[in-house]
Amino acid sequence: MMSKRNVYLDMKPLAEARAIFLESIDGSNVLPTEEVTVADAVDRILAEPVFARVSAPTYHGAAMDGIAVRAGDTYGASDHAPLELVVGTGAIFVNTGEPLPEGMNAVIMIEDVQVLDDEKVQIEAPTFPWKHVRRVGEDIVATEMLFPRRHRVTPMCTGALLAGGVTAVPVLRRPRVLIIPTGGEMVDAEAVGEGGVEPGKIIESNSTMLGAMVTAAGGEHVRHEGLRDDADVIAGVIAEAATSFDLVLVIGGSSAGARDFTKTAIERAGGEVMVHGVTIMPGKPTLLAAVGDRPVVGIPGYPVSAIIAFREFVAPALDRMQGVRTEDRRIVAATPTRKIASKLGMEELVRVRLGRVGEQLVANPLPRGAGTVTSITQADGIVRIGADLEGLHPDRAVDVELLRPLSEIERHIVAVGSHDLSLDVIADLLRKGETGYTLSSSHVGSLAGLMAVKNGRCHLAGSHLLDPEDGSYNTSYLEKHLPDVPVKLVPLVLREQGLMVVKGNPKEIGGFEDLTRDDITFINRQGGSGTRVLLDFELDRRGIPASGMKGYETEEFTHMAVAVAVKSGAADAGLGILSAAKALDLDFIPVTTERYDLVIPEAFFETPPIERLLTVIRSEEFASRLDELGGYSTEADTFFQTL
Amino acid sequence: MMSKRNVYLDMKPLAEARAIFLESIDGSNVLPTEEVTVADAVDRILAEPVFARVSAPTYHGAAMDGIAVRAGDTYGASDHAPLELVVGTGAIFVNTGEPLPEGMNAVIMIEDVQVLDDEKVQIEAPTFPWKHVRRVGEDIVATEMLFPRRHRVTPMCTGALLAGGVTAVPVLRRPRVLIIPTGGEMVDAEAVGEGGVEPGKIIESNSTMLGAMVTAAGGEHVRHEGLRDDADVIAGVIAEAATSFDLVLVIGGSSAGARDFTKTAIERAGGEVMVHGVTIMPGKPTLLAAVGDRPVVGIPGYPVSAIIAFREFVAPALDRMQGVRTEDRRIVAATPTRKIASKLGMEELVRVRLGRVGEQLVANPLPRGAGTVTSITQADGIVRIGADLEGLHPDRAVDVELLRPLSEIERHIVAVGSHDLSLDVIADLLRKGETGYTLSSSHVGSLAGLMAVKNGRCHLAGSHLLDPEDGSYNTSYLEKHLPDVPVKLVPLVLREQGLMVVKGNPKEIGGFEDLTRDDITFINRQGGSGTRVLLDFELDRRGIPASGMKGYETEEFTHMAVAVAVKSGAADAGLGILSAAKALDLDFIPVTTERYDLVIPEAFFETPPIERLLTVIRSEEFASRLDELGGYSTEADTFFQTL
Repeated sequence: MMSKRNVYLDMKPLAEARAIFLESIDGSNVLPTEEVTVADAVDRILAEPVFARVSAPTYHGAAMDGIAVRAGDTYGASDHAPLELVVGTGAIFVNTGEPLPEGMNAVIMIEDVQVLDDEKVQIEAPTFPWKHVRRVGEDIVATEMLFPRRHRVTPMCTGALLAGGVTAVPVLRRPRVLIIPTGGEMVDAEAVGEGGVEPGKIIESNSTMLGAMVTAAGGEHVRHEGLRDDADVIAGVIAEAATSFDLVLVIGGSSAGARDFTKTAIERAGGEVMVHGVTIMPGKPTLLAAVGDRPVVGIPGYPVSAIIAFREFVAPALDRMQGVRTEDRRIVAATPTRKIASKLGMEELVRVRLGRVGEQLVANPLPRGAGTVTSITQADGIVRIGADLEGLHPDRAVDVELLRPLSEIERHIVAVGSHDLSLDVIADLLRKGETGYTLSSSHVGSLAGLMAVKNGRCHLAGSHLLDPEDGSYNTSYLEKHLPDVPVKLVPLVLREQGLMVVKGNPKEIGGFEDLTRDDITFINRQGGSGTRVLLDFELDRRGIPASGMKGYETEEFTHMAVAVAVKSGAADAGLGILSAAKALDLDFIPVTTERYDLVIPEAFFETPPIERLLTVIRSEEFASRLDELGGYSTEADTFFQTL
Repeated sequence: MMSKRNVYLDMKPLAEARAIFLESIDGSNVLPTEEVTVADAVDRILAEPVFARVSAPTYHGAAMDGIAVRAGDTYGASDHAPLELVVGTGAIFVNTGEPLPEGMNAVIMIEDVQVLDDEKVQIEAPTFPWKHVRRVGEDIVATEMLFPRRHRVTPMCTGALLAGGVTAVPVLRRPRVLIIPTGGEMVDAEAVGEGGVEPGKIIESNSTMLGAMVTAAGGEHVRHEGLRDDADVIAGVIAEAATSFDLVLVIGGSSAGARDFTKTAIERAGGEVMVHGVTIMPGKPTLLAAVGDRPVVGIPGYPVSAIIAFREFVAPALDRMQGVRTEDRRIVAATPTRKIASKLGMEELVRVRLGRVGEQLVANPLPRGAGTVTSITQADGIVRIGADLEGLHPDRAVDVELLRPLSEIERHIVAVGSHDLSLDVIADLLRKGETGYTLSSSHVGSLAGLMAVKNGRCHLAGSHLLDPEDGSYNTSYLEKHLPDVPVKLVPLVLREQGLMVVKGNPKEIGGFEDLTRDDITFINRQGGSGTRVLLDFELDRRGIPASGMKGYETEEFTHMAVAVAVKSGAADAGLGILSAAKALDLDFIPVTTERYDLVIPEAFFETPPIERLLTVIRSEEFASRLDELGGYSTEADTFFQTL
């Protein structure tokens, strides 16, 4: 295989690329009109203004239970000079909603009427014309415009349409989008058996995801079968699609590498490429083109890039075709919890988790890779770092575009610190109640978690820091690092740490002593993590030099990542928890049972979210879920130890 | 017909009523689980946590085009001491996404590789293990929890699920809601012929509207055929529904009047009424009950009350069944443009239109009636006035719950002033472009419009104020009322004003002189409206005393309302514009041709929204649409007259 350098001839900034692309779309003349019933019109876009056929109400009606009268008859009535009215001629009983009897022009509430007998009533105050009467057309006047064109019909609008006698409305046909996945390495998720995915193969998830995004943007979509990397085949499909679809998405091959065929295919289909390469990350290899008057977008294959390309280019294009603006980017100010570096010349879209800690909305950056789809499904928002910036400083608030309602974000319990699988169990069980609290955890290691507590950037931190002096956990670290922050230490679990090795232990690793063997590669955890502290303690007391271990410098951030490194053969052994080994079916050589505690600032301790969390971790279901994971015990000696 | 007083035995405040009702719903055990494909899972709620079946990526892959190497081989390479690698054994060309060849653990970008010949490449810098490699599980580790239970699946989530090898997920069955419209006065909109609606009949629109709201809240619904006012019939349907639906809505008859049967019907169905009457307006006659363990809600028949009852009680109940919180009430601060009175002891929900005028977000109250569905379809937000308040003061900012995205509201062109049908044409034609500007107009009369301009509460005001001294329009009023506000006066239309009378003019009204006849009832416009000024001028110059006219004191706020009053027989004549008479097929006795101008503060004149509006009113389509309405001319003498 030979490869050449990726080259984009003329990368464009985001705003310029979008302007060029949208300008090429004939917004007003793309979509035909179709008529649908009012019930089916919800979320559709009106093609024409809609006018009322009838008035509402259609008749003068009583707005209260009482008597209908001629207002003129009542003038002069007072408590000194009560007025008698004859039932049937001067006063007619009416219920709310009934038509006003002929000749009457006001209603007196029944509370203000004294019924003398079957034939006479008495009032003690006059009324005036149209009092307590719902008049014809009070709500809607026949012929009036109910909604202008391009109005998006809401559930409530159906009430106004029907009340105005309108039963069907002209709406724009939904834009039709063809989605073409390409790439010989793609397999359908449905085709993945118990054995997993073949090496070199990737599950094709983008077409389903983009299809759902098309639906959410008001369009319809058809998924074409996956195409192999062949410019002519792709060109043929694009050329035909451009005659029958309003927009075409080609997934993959949109970059400028030797095996990227989208640009060539579009050109062979007779199309014009307007933009190839955009100075955004993720999303750089986006390709914006047209075949005839039909827009064609080359969508990058990495899922986060695909999402960004959709949000920045495809959704606005669908809006333009429909003559609407659905853009509703809600911006909040939040404070990054750490420095975020960024490349000059590229606009970078960093996904963040948000949470309200005390008064502050904090933003925890998520992994940056364009391939990390969980970095966007877990994200609460996106921070845009302009092309002219080299990054963002911590503690200086930045604008964050929300991906979730702020009301949901405000209910996040922000956990920053060490990683343990029990946190996922807590996250799940929190959802069983209806309090709406969610656990949002960032895995940075125990010590960094304590720093986050210190700096007011989280509600709690998971920690398992061993003190080599006395074998205690966490307490001495709290004394040292958080002398001024009153916290409670809540023992969460006792858990088994040990060496993870591949199933069957083919290299016959017996313990730490074997880690210096020439044929053994170790995989380490990052400095500041409790597991790293444990490793160094165990090596030290055995007199094993770290320098003698291959792989000591290679660091991972979670137990699961270490387990994966072992599972995939990248390393022969790593230190981690039994539940991670069990999850990936690895062998496990026990080393110690350690305490994993939650460090919770006293300021948050008696708040409803933390109380709810404490209820969860004291529940029987939590204990039984931990049993299933294995390697856990919740029988900690002391339960609410206050420092 | 005999009527008795409406009595609610024990009305409850909103918060208390909701708490009682929600507590009665067994949130955790109502809905069974069903399995759907990932594509069909969008917007559904996960019934159980979902775990990844495979890792993503599933293999170590190249993250860059370049050469795969063993990092250890490259140590020591520098520009002084370049290192040669043998293609095939020490260096293997790879493209982005390809599996890392066996034994290799890093990729060097092709930009940093010098290809010497087919067999040798040279590098000038070392690399380190896993550089430019996407490792197994970098995104997702097999067995990890992808989403906790009760997570609502978004389009993006489908990408993470499929990437984790998950093709189907367990979701909660949608809650099933039966909607039962009641009331003998109801007719289907479909049944309304060209002749309109029979007097005493009301188009049944609530069931369609509530059905759409159920869908939006994640439920499914069935509409029962409309039932007449018969407690036993209604009770039978409720009793059966309570065995097969998760929630039952009974529309109408929820009040405490003589002909309100919902309470009785629920009790006869064996149900328990928890709340009857809530101290909110609109929405007071809401009834909250249960038959067995199934919630039953009596929904008031007035459409705005129905919407409020749904939003405040039904939507939270559906949320509770689904274990989610969809509540996302966005609050903004806005300044009421006028005093809003409110009843002590009732929490009042006032619908408002919002707009950004200069720096200020202003709130224009809409009509208050519970029957006015357009007051909520036109609303941008809702102001809640607590039960302990007698109202809100103008110029003091209040919290407004948004009903539309703020981004849409920010694009409103706020018109306050005189009413003319051409404003609807402008509103419609503005939507033809894609600028997203919308016209939001409040009809308060010409003079009140000028006051709104003066106080910075609108972007423009429609005005047609005649100066009786010289027959001029608007200019002298601007000099008098807006001496310090630089404005431009844009002639919009010349239009015919005249007396509107019923078709055929049966009372043979010839002109103003006939308005003092005993058999003639007039319908007037409000003080400060241009049409009222015109009337008083015409009466004055003819020496006709207002006191001699029956109905002079009865005021309407729009031309169409006056036309409706004449059409419905409430009055015999009213002064108004030809287009309104034409719209309702009335006869018209011309009085004068008058100028209707737009008054636009200079501060807004060259802003994009106003420029767009000016483009619309100078367009040929605007002129031809006015021709269709009739009574208009756009050939005003001067077009951009600056004061």
